[in-house]
Amino acid sequence: MTDLVERLRTGLPAEAVVTDQDVTASYARDMASFCTAGAPAVVVLPRTVEQVQHVMRTATALRVPVVPQGARTGLSGAANASDGCIVLSLVKMDRILEIDTVNRIAVVEPGVVNAVLSRAVAEKGLYYPPDPSSWEQCTIGGNIGTGSGGLCCVKYGVTAEYVLGLDVVLADGRLLRTGRRTAKGVAGYDLTRLFVGSEGSLGIVVKAVLALKPTPPRQLALGAEFPSTAAACDAICAIMEAGHVPSLLELMDRTTIHAVNEMANMGLPESTEALLLAAFDTADPAADLAAVGELCAAAGATTVVPAEDAAESELLLQARRLSLPAMERITGTTMIDDVAVPRSKLIAMLDGVAAIAARYDLVIGVCAHAGDGNTHPVVCFDAGDPDATRRARESFDEIMALGLELGGTITGEHGVGVLKKDWLARELGPVGVELQRGVKQVFDPLGLLNPGKLF
Amino acid sequence: MTDLVERLRTGLPAEAVVTDQDVTASYARDMASFCTAGAPAVVVLPRTVEQVQHVMRTATALRVPVVPQGARTGLSGAANASDGCIVLSLVKMDRILEIDTVNRIAVVEPGVVNAVLSRAVAEKGLYYPPDPSSWEQCTIGGNIGTGSGGLCCVKYGVTAEYVLGLDVVLADGRLLRTGRRTAKGVAGYDLTRLFVGSEGSLGIVVKAVLALKPTPPRQLALGAEFPSTAAACDAICAIMEAGHVPSLLELMDRTTIHAVNEMANMGLPESTEALLLAAFDTADPAADLAAVGELCAAAGATTVVPAEDAAESELLLQARRLSLPAMERITGTTMIDDVAVPRSKLIAMLDGVAAIAARYDLVIGVCAHAGDGNTHPVVCFDAGDPDATRRARESFDEIMALGLELGGTITGEHGVGVLKKDWLARELGPVGVELQRGVKQVFDPLGLLNPGKLF
Repeated sequence: MTDLVERLRTGLPAEAVVTDQDVTASYARDMASFCTAGAPAVVVLPRTVEQVQHVMRTATALRVPVVPQGARTGLSGAANASDGCIVLSLVKMDRILEIDTVNRIAVVEPGVVNAVLSRAVAEKGLYYPPDPSSWEQCTIGGNIGTGSGGLCCVKYGVTAEYVLGLDVVLADGRLLRTGRRTAKGVAGYDLTRLFVGSEGSLGIVVKAVLALKPTPPRQLALGAEFPSTAAACDAICAIMEAGHVPSLLELMDRTTIHAVNEMANMGLPESTEALLLAAFDTADPAADLAAVGELCAAAGATTVVPAEDAAESELLLQARRLSLPAMERITGTTMIDDVAVPRSKLIAMLDGVAAIAARYDLVIGVCAHAGDGNTHPVVCFDAGDPDATRRARESFDEIMALGLELGGTITGEHGVGVLKKDWLARELGPVGVELQRGVKQVFDPLGLLNPGKLF
Repeated sequence: MTDLVERLRTGLPAEAVVTDQDVTASYARDMASFCTAGAPAVVVLPRTVEQVQHVMRTATALRVPVVPQGARTGLSGAANASDGCIVLSLVKMDRILEIDTVNRIAVVEPGVVNAVLSRAVAEKGLYYPPDPSSWEQCTIGGNIGTGSGGLCCVKYGVTAEYVLGLDVVLADGRLLRTGRRTAKGVAGYDLTRLFVGSEGSLGIVVKAVLALKPTPPRQLALGAEFPSTAAACDAICAIMEAGHVPSLLELMDRTTIHAVNEMANMGLPESTEALLLAAFDTADPAADLAAVGELCAAAGATTVVPAEDAAESELLLQARRLSLPAMERITGTTMIDDVAVPRSKLIAMLDGVAAIAARYDLVIGVCAHAGDGNTHPVVCFDAGDPDATRRARESFDEIMALGLELGGTITGEHGVGVLKKDWLARELGPVGVELQRGVKQVFDPLGLLNPGKLF
């Protein structure tokens, strides 16, 4: 331990090596509930690639596990420390190195906060779409590690689609450069994509080349109230089948609506069973909203309210963004699930979650990136009540089982981490797990990178 | 050899095992020039997953290399046979299994021809964008193997972006299922993407889940004539920097224009140095074309001709599509390069190629997916002339070196195969190659799948 810290200090400035246990303890976990976390031996905060290489060489020499971290806003425990590990926090590597308007790329260090990058590129007429709800805190490195999504994905896809190339420090400290700065490229296996969503288990991302889009027109939203979740799901299918390309298509169930009203007095319609939010950032969003409004009405919407301007749109989206914090207030603790199903199976998923909630006598509210079939069932419970806690865990698992049964995945955008690793094997099957372990072995033969995650 | 054929016949219908050497010889190579090709021992044409598994189990048992093939329209020798190999042609597995309009996916076997799928989904209001120039012949399996692009990529991206999930028969005959049917998913390492562009070296794709888009409005094109390639490249940069999203942005140089006129009497403007083609499939393409036309004029275009309707647009695109066949007629033989650079480096790339052509005393015409920075310098020469052939090869290599120097890649969309494998190592560097070989080893420990390709 003394040897570890001493060796780390030979290649890092004094303030970049933190051993005060009160401080290191604060780096123990991300935002996920119910995930084990250990006590780090040391927290390092490098500012350069060379310093990261020094950390990894030291870790390899002494066989000490390394847990890479961004802002620790993750929801699966992927950033949780293990006992005696080096926590490698990338938050000090937070420079935007380049924004190139002709080639529509940004080159960034991993600690850049998502919102900082988004604003910086917006000033140049460009758009970095991935917008996880933690975008004001979370880092690009963390987004890459977990394969983050957000509200924009129904039109713009997830983080993976914006990562063109990476610089990665390997477990043994060597530097790997993957991918490209060009719009296209097929030279060899796509190692870049392998790192996206790998939760720091294959290497430490120290630089990323990101693709950008031109800034779209400002989006305009509508809200539609439905007398049943089935009717709302019908509307979602009809909207997508008709060929619309909304920039956002979200669903909030009655529990969620109620919670948001409780928290923020937003005046959402509590009598409805489901609220659908749709937005378009097209040349004529009002026309698109009118067409979608008709489809909602045909599917049984009782009220369709298109926003008249950006401010009204923002208010609607604000309601959606408050969903998770609002539900946390219901019983004190929540477990947020992240099951994605084919969008045609949304009805079955929502009905199934309601049945699970009834069976376990729990409040489970659902908000969903409905256009993507990506549901976030939020299990609300009192963590002080052991029986409620047990029921919450069991219901959480049943929700994943239901997702798999419906042809879905256990995680649309939050990742596997500690929380879902038993379930990952179930989704991948034995052949898939064997090959994934084989890939891990190639990149990290000593098993030092974020051990105990994913598998 | 007899043992091999007999064993293959135990799990395949008689007509699916071809040993007639006149026939098997016709499966020796794809469309690439200057790539070695051996004589296959046998060609198999399975129709089911089980038959593919039987082939791979047999190959593993007898340690016989397997070369998977689609339509053999590739341009890098990736489908070329090696001596004594099993050629595994997937062209008989050509069923479209499912087109799902709500979830916007298609599920297909690998032998489905690109154009057949494109037309089938179009009938249902959907769009499968990847459109390599061989789209009337090439198969989806081949497109996945090479990571194919096309004209649409500047707006819609490459094949990789449309592959959601795969069924893959591994070298030992086991079946691996990767990815998903959902819009989003981050469960484990992205093995799906690893297979895209892997040129059949990691496993045999037997089923693919493909993402589809809604059919966009019909595109409208314009042609703009420039007095220099530099002015045309300026226009391209200006168009992209202004935030336009063309559905096509192509460049033809004087050599290409001349060749197309010679072949098809299209009346293209031979006096110009470069012809830019831009198209939009937006709600108001005429307005977009007008804006782009102004940028072209500002960059120095002498003439800007927007098409008035779809028929005129099609005529412009036809000229672009004829570029490669037209250049083949100049001196009988061509080598088509495929170097992608950041689009801001297009000028340097085109100037550099002109200098290389002059130095080697060769005709090198360039057509380019200019919006992507993806150039296709076409080296024209007389293959009967050994000195010209040597010069052609050397110039081809110099073009790749130039691309790398400019921050580009040796292959934007055609792949590595046999043609560029020495160059792949140069692009990836030693650490990259070591890891890529490690990945290969995980999937194909005996090295039976398409040996001699990529590395």
